[in-house]
Amino acid sequence: MEQTFTFIIEVVGTFAFAISGIRLAAYKKFDLFGAFTIGLVTATGGGTLRDVLLNLPVFWLQTPLYLIITGLALAVVVMFRKTLVSHNRLLFTFDAVGLALFVVIGIQKTLEAGYPMWGAIVMGTVTGSFGGVVRDILINEEPLFFRKDIYATTCIAGGFIYWIMNLLGAGLIVQQLGCAVTVIGLRVCALRYNWRLPVLSSEIRGD
Amino acid sequence: MEQTFTFIIEVVGTFAFAISGIRLAAYKKFDLFGAFTIGLVTATGGGTLRDVLLNLPVFWLQTPLYLIITGLALAVVVMFRKTLVSHNRLLFTFDAVGLALFVVIGIQKTLEAGYPMWGAIVMGTVTGSFGGVVRDILINEEPLFFRKDIYATTCIAGGFIYWIMNLLGAGLIVQQLGCAVTVIGLRVCALRYNWRLPVLSSEIRGD
Amino acid sequence: MEQTFTFIIEVVGTFAFAISGIRLAAYKKFDLFGAFTIGLVTATGGGTLRDVLLNLPVFWLQTPLYLIITGLALAVVVMFRKTLVSHNRLLFTFDAVGLALFVVIGIQKTLEAGYPMWGAIVMGTVTGSFGGVVRDILINEEPLFFRKDIYATTCIAGGFIYWIMNLLGAGLIVQQLGCAVTVIGLRVCALRYNWRLPVLSSEIRGD
Repeated sequence: MEQTFTFIIEVVGTFAFAISGIRLAAYKKFDLFGAFTIGLVTATGGGTLRDVLLNLPVFWLQTPLYLIITGLALAVVVMFRKTLVSHNRLLFTFDAVGLALFVVIGIQKTLEAGYPMWGAIVMGTVTGSFGGVVRDILINEEPLFFRKDIYATTCIAGGFIYWIMNLLGAGLIVQQLGCAVTVIGLRVCALRYNWRLPVLSSEIRGD
Repeated sequence: MEQTFTFIIEVVGTFAFAISGIRLAAYKKFDLFGAFTIGLVTATGGGTLRDVLLNLPVFWLQTPLYLIITGLALAVVVMFRKTLVSHNRLLFTFDAVGLALFVVIGIQKTLEAGYPMWGAIVMGTVTGSFGGVVRDILINEEPLFFRKDIYATTCIAGGFIYWIMNLLGAGLIVQQLGCAVTVIGLRVCALRYNWRLPVLSSEIRGD
Repeated sequence: MEQTFTFIIEVVGTFAFAISGIRLAAYKKFDLFGAFTIGLVTATGGGTLRDVLLNLPVFWLQTPLYLIITGLALAVVVMFRKTLVSHNRLLFTFDAVGLALFVVIGIQKTLEAGYPMWGAIVMGTVTGSFGGVVRDILINEEPLFFRKDIYATTCIAGGFIYWIMNLLGAGLIVQQLGCAVTVIGLRVCALRYNWRLPVLSSEIRGD
């Protein structure tokens, strides 16, 4: 059951992130293949970097599933382009859920590979946010997540909740649920209350 | 003989891609070392990502050959800078041949590593086009291949021909020739007839 | 003792590079987490690419030390922001020392992994300069090192001194010191006398 649960998590998270990447590519007037690639990279970039850094087999090369999900996401964006305008809230929720799920999976896989908790938190954050960073680099925009609302910080907070639950002796499902709920809750609050981290301003140019 | 053939393919493809990267660096007024680096990255970036994702030893670290070829390409650009202006057609042909060869090698190596055909097609495309993407990122331009003529799509089409030939029971050389001819033919047609994929336009900004 | 020496080298180099990344992030008005990430990437990016290409375990995942050093660098920049203005020379020295140390470590690790000297020189250069390249990509600036003073060329020169010392039968410490002194000396000269490589100019646009 744990396996099935993880599987569903990955499918939903991948679909949500692919949609987000494809919509941005559409806004930038990419062609269909470019949009597909941006969607795929957004959805799999974080997990790919995680697997490469941990020296694990790259997950999306083990099954064509992730290519298929991205293709479905592309079809959805093409078909429902106009309807999607009025559902920004739905898409935001989707993205927040995807983020939460990716953080949970990143932490779990890193712990299973034998790394300590601090490494797992870093890898959860990488899994959740690196896809968006690569997306922004490919479309040649300054990575939004560095300046926008507390995106990556949210992943780290979720990771700490995972850790605390673990130290308190909670079951695996509880640890993962606590982490996911934290990420989703913080994302919603960050949007609603416009939460931001202090800016590190400086007049000095480093080099 | 198969080995020698593959070797010649890699040398010619590397040289063609290095020339293309160095010429762009020259246009952007990079210094000699910067131009060498851009040439090297253009020529080896795709194969490097392929080897990292497949967890194979990175090919250009096994022999100094690829550094030497890039050095030769740099010397050629420096010496024949003016002559090269009037040979854009020659250089385009070179680039198309390089692309075709890289796709064939990417597919072959992935199949040899035990992956299924769909993974090999993805990796052929990565081998052929990722070097150019990194080049464009390093010189801080929006990756051309996402919007220009059908560059990566061509790699995929070549991969499908490889697959079909394989399903039809053709010999390895026939599969590879079919793939290469498809890539070169599509590149030539894309240039001559200005073929493009439909653009995925949208007024919606994703986030 | 060799071990302790290498350890001190890595700590000092990491701190110096983290400071340099965080100062640039401050100049670009990143938030605290963004600045931390940029500092971490600047300090560990080169070694990470080296480890991935050599298929070694990624060094900063083996101990939390590098995260802690980056955290300290962030604290130092926040606390001494104003004082740092008047110490550009100190910071430049820091950066040059960090670069020299990273080149030495990159060469040493590559040789230990069984690669020949030419590969070690390439990896020393990657270790020393790739962190800065990723930093520039993440903040969406054209990588400075491609056009600025002789940054990467300096790493290569240091590598050749390492090689020559090795061929002359010098001890390991002498090889490493010769390499480090070369890098630091060339950096200081490049700044003072404004040394640059010839630019590869061209009116031709490659594609």
